[in-house]
Amino acid sequence: MHTLITGAAGMIGRKLTARLVRDGALAGRAIERMTLTDIVGPEAPARAPFAVATAASDLAAADAAAEAIAHRPDVIFHLAAVVSGEAEADFDKGYRVNSDSIRELLEAIRLAGDGYRPKLVFASSIAVFGAPFPDAIGDEFFLTPLTSYGTQKAIGELLLADYTRRGFLDGIGIRLPSIVVRPGEPNRAASGFFSSIIREPLAGQEAVLPVSEDVRHWFASPRAAVEFLIHAASLARERLGARINLTMPGLSCTVGEQIAALARVAGADAVRRIRREPDAAIAKIVAGWPQNFDARRAAALGFRAETSFDEIIRAHIEDELGGRIG
Amino acid sequence: MHTLITGAAGMIGRKLTARLVRDGALAGRAIERMTLTDIVGPEAPARAPFAVATAASDLAAADAAAEAIAHRPDVIFHLAAVVSGEAEADFDKGYRVNSDSIRELLEAIRLAGDGYRPKLVFASSIAVFGAPFPDAIGDEFFLTPLTSYGTQKAIGELLLADYTRRGFLDGIGIRLPSIVVRPGEPNRAASGFFSSIIREPLAGQEAVLPVSEDVRHWFASPRAAVEFLIHAASLARERLGARINLTMPGLSCTVGEQIAALARVAGADAVRRIRREPDAAIAKIVAGWPQNFDARRAAALGFRAETSFDEIIRAHIEDELGGRIG
Repeated sequence: MHTLITGAAGMIGRKLTARLVRDGALAGRAIERMTLTDIVGPEAPARAPFAVATAASDLAAADAAAEAIAHRPDVIFHLAAVVSGEAEADFDKGYRVNSDSIRELLEAIRLAGDGYRPKLVFASSIAVFGAPFPDAIGDEFFLTPLTSYGTQKAIGELLLADYTRRGFLDGIGIRLPSIVVRPGEPNRAASGFFSSIIREPLAGQEAVLPVSEDVRHWFASPRAAVEFLIHAASLARERLGARINLTMPGLSCTVGEQIAALARVAGADAVRRIRREPDAAIAKIVAGWPQNFDARRAAALGFRAETSFDEIIRAHIEDELGGRIG
Repeated sequence: MHTLITGAAGMIGRKLTARLVRDGALAGRAIERMTLTDIVGPEAPARAPFAVATAASDLAAADAAAEAIAHRPDVIFHLAAVVSGEAEADFDKGYRVNSDSIRELLEAIRLAGDGYRPKLVFASSIAVFGAPFPDAIGDEFFLTPLTSYGTQKAIGELLLADYTRRGFLDGIGIRLPSIVVRPGEPNRAASGFFSSIIREPLAGQEAVLPVSEDVRHWFASPRAAVEFLIHAASLARERLGARINLTMPGLSCTVGEQIAALARVAGADAVRRIRREPDAAIAKIVAGWPQNFDARRAAALGFRAETSFDEIIRAHIEDELGGRIG
């Protein structure tokens, strides 16, 4: 089978690529060929047991989507996106990358004209929801995004559902929780502190906490995110019905609980590396974010996330730090 | 003030035009100028107390949206759409007219560059919802359209909300119930019988009923629809908050209750003109449609619909039949 990953150079794209290289199979079939695209050409993985093609591609540009599917990938992971902060800062770019590129991809599939009907796994986001929220956001809560990013992802979900209903492809949208602990350098995203207050102390460095400890949010590890994508690609169409966009399971947890988990896993010294530096602007942004979900449909379909923040921290230590705390 | 109506040649567009000509004012301000556009040039109303320009315009075509707002209308009623059946039969046309045209209009407004910030009233539809439904669909029920038309309207709602949030305009989306009694000739829409079983008997003609009498649906009269549009144009931005798309009030009623109302208003002879001719295909389509809503937000904001089907029939007799039953 042939699999295509768009946005393959991003954090999740690289981890998914590595996992598929390791597995050599997807949805019970051996992978024979893999195509990786991103706005800059992604790196080809070393020692892949199958052929890998890489391409720099802007899916919203003319013919790019048709080229991306020219070799008729059986499974497409559509991860290409600009993040929330960038979509808010650059209105045109956000719509172009987050909305237009999925429509172009869906149109290319519809117009293939040779009976092509791939599986498409779309990385959506809990940003499709906007405050005010119930205590736990259920599977039937409405889409009221309060960001351009969330709007663009919600449009992607609607298009995917309609093209799937019409029989042009077999789509599934999965709304990812906030993914922590993100590896790498601190970034300037408003959500960055959720990762950095764990990642930096584990590496022996100082981290800044801009909000109070009672801030609650919805999390899963990068490892769980990759597992969601792979499980989604393996799900039989019949199990989904008409409602193909699903909130993924996750862990609802406060900053205080994150810090308590850090103390349990890495000791009090690590916790002392967190410096409180309240930032009203960040606190205001975060106050509009979802805090808790009741993701029972996804759970019933076999999607699994971590059930304690300790697990999320240990996944980071295993996957990024070779099992050692700095 | 200057008002623009897109889709002005349609049934609701013509009734809205006539009402504004009669009122000479909107949202407490005198109308000085009116622009009417449609895919074929709409007829200018006779005896308007203000200047009326008409134009044939395909809003999804290059520059058409910029031309439509060239004279900076203060209030835009965006009614242009192809109906559900046509959007399902012609995939390209549905997305072009129902999704692309609102995006082009919003983009033209955003890019005006002179501080232009109109009020835009978008005619959305209860087709943004898809079965299975709760007993009464609440204001926070999620968008799961089961038609391309519903998908296109849902995308329009999301775009309108994001452009409004960003301050490019002042938008409001109103989800219209099924509008009955539609005047004019019977059409081939699956929903046509809801109107024809009233309209034809009142005109002394036979009508065909393709479904059973326990079929329930959600209705308002054309008169109520015009009232919704005018009330929406008059609502202060502050009263809406972030959730600018609203399910309009309506009447939940069965076909049997429709027929009982016809008997009360027009007598047993009228009812005898309804011929039962079950059609499994139509019954199946209608089974996926919403039956009942709890539209409390719209009610709290002052939107009003009929509370009995007798009223809906009497509105038709007054507005279309000069008060006389044929």
